[in-house]
Amino acid sequence: MVKNRSLVEEGTDINLQFEKRDGLLPVAVQDSSTGEILMIASVNREAFDHTLETGEPAFWSTSRNELWIKGLTSGNTIRLDDVLVDCDQDALVYRVTLEGEGVCHTKNKNGVHRTSCFYRKLNREGNQLEFKDE
Amino acid sequence: MVKNRSLVEEGTDINLQFEKRDGLLPVAVQDSSTGEILMIASVNREAFDHTLETGEPAFWSTSRNELWIKGLTSGNTIRLDDVLVDCDQDALVYRVTLEGEGVCHTKNKNGVHRTSCFYRKLNREGNQLEFKDE
Repeated sequence: MVKNRSLVEEGTDINLQFEKRDGLLPVAVQDSSTGEILMIASVNREAFDHTLETGEPAFWSTSRNELWIKGLTSGNTIRLDDVLVDCDQDALVYRVTLEGEGVCHTKNKNGVHRTSCFYRKLNREGNQLEFKDE
Repeated sequence: MVKNRSLVEEGTDINLQFEKRDGLLPVAVQDSSTGEILMIASVNREAFDHTLETGEPAFWSTSRNELWIKGLTSGNTIRLDDVLVDCDQDALVYRVTLEGEGVCHTKNKNGVHRTSCFYRKLNREGNQLEFKDE
């Protein structure tokens, strides 16, 4: 529920607008040292509370419908440095440090997890994807 | 519809998974020169097609339920430099250059639109927000 708009935008109270977004807010995960965006995921209140309580960056897996702790199965963990909150309090940025191979579940040609899920970009014509660094 | 997973992840065809996400994909808007994340918004197929056709970064306003061209009313436009697509093709990054005041609809104490919507971060205790640069 949006409370007083000015409080949401200019206040210091945490008042994340989960209800406005069907319980799920987008979170961009950004490498603190390079500024690279590593992935975009979702958090619900449970994932956010887990993140606050443990310092582990937690997400909500919309495909598996369960709490998702990055690196729990792959070992490629990320350390949480900062949590940024936007004006409307309905989007987040986790600034993180990589503690293993990259965050992506895909692997590059050397068999290493890609650093970022955003390894492709639109070509100049806007009709195909191209690989950024491979 | 998810087609062949390997084609989605390793292919060069644009195959954005709008259907998987009820028609709306998250897009992180990032300053090309500084790496700062400016905002996180949504795009539907119409907004994405508009972006491709015109080169104007377009979004879908979920509150007004209409196409949203950044800066159309405020004059604070952004120039699109690159569009990055993630592994699952269900999230985007627009890399942009600011062409006016900042992208946020809120203003700082000097009456200038804030550069980024992410002007607050969680404090160390995780129980309050603090302003980053004000």
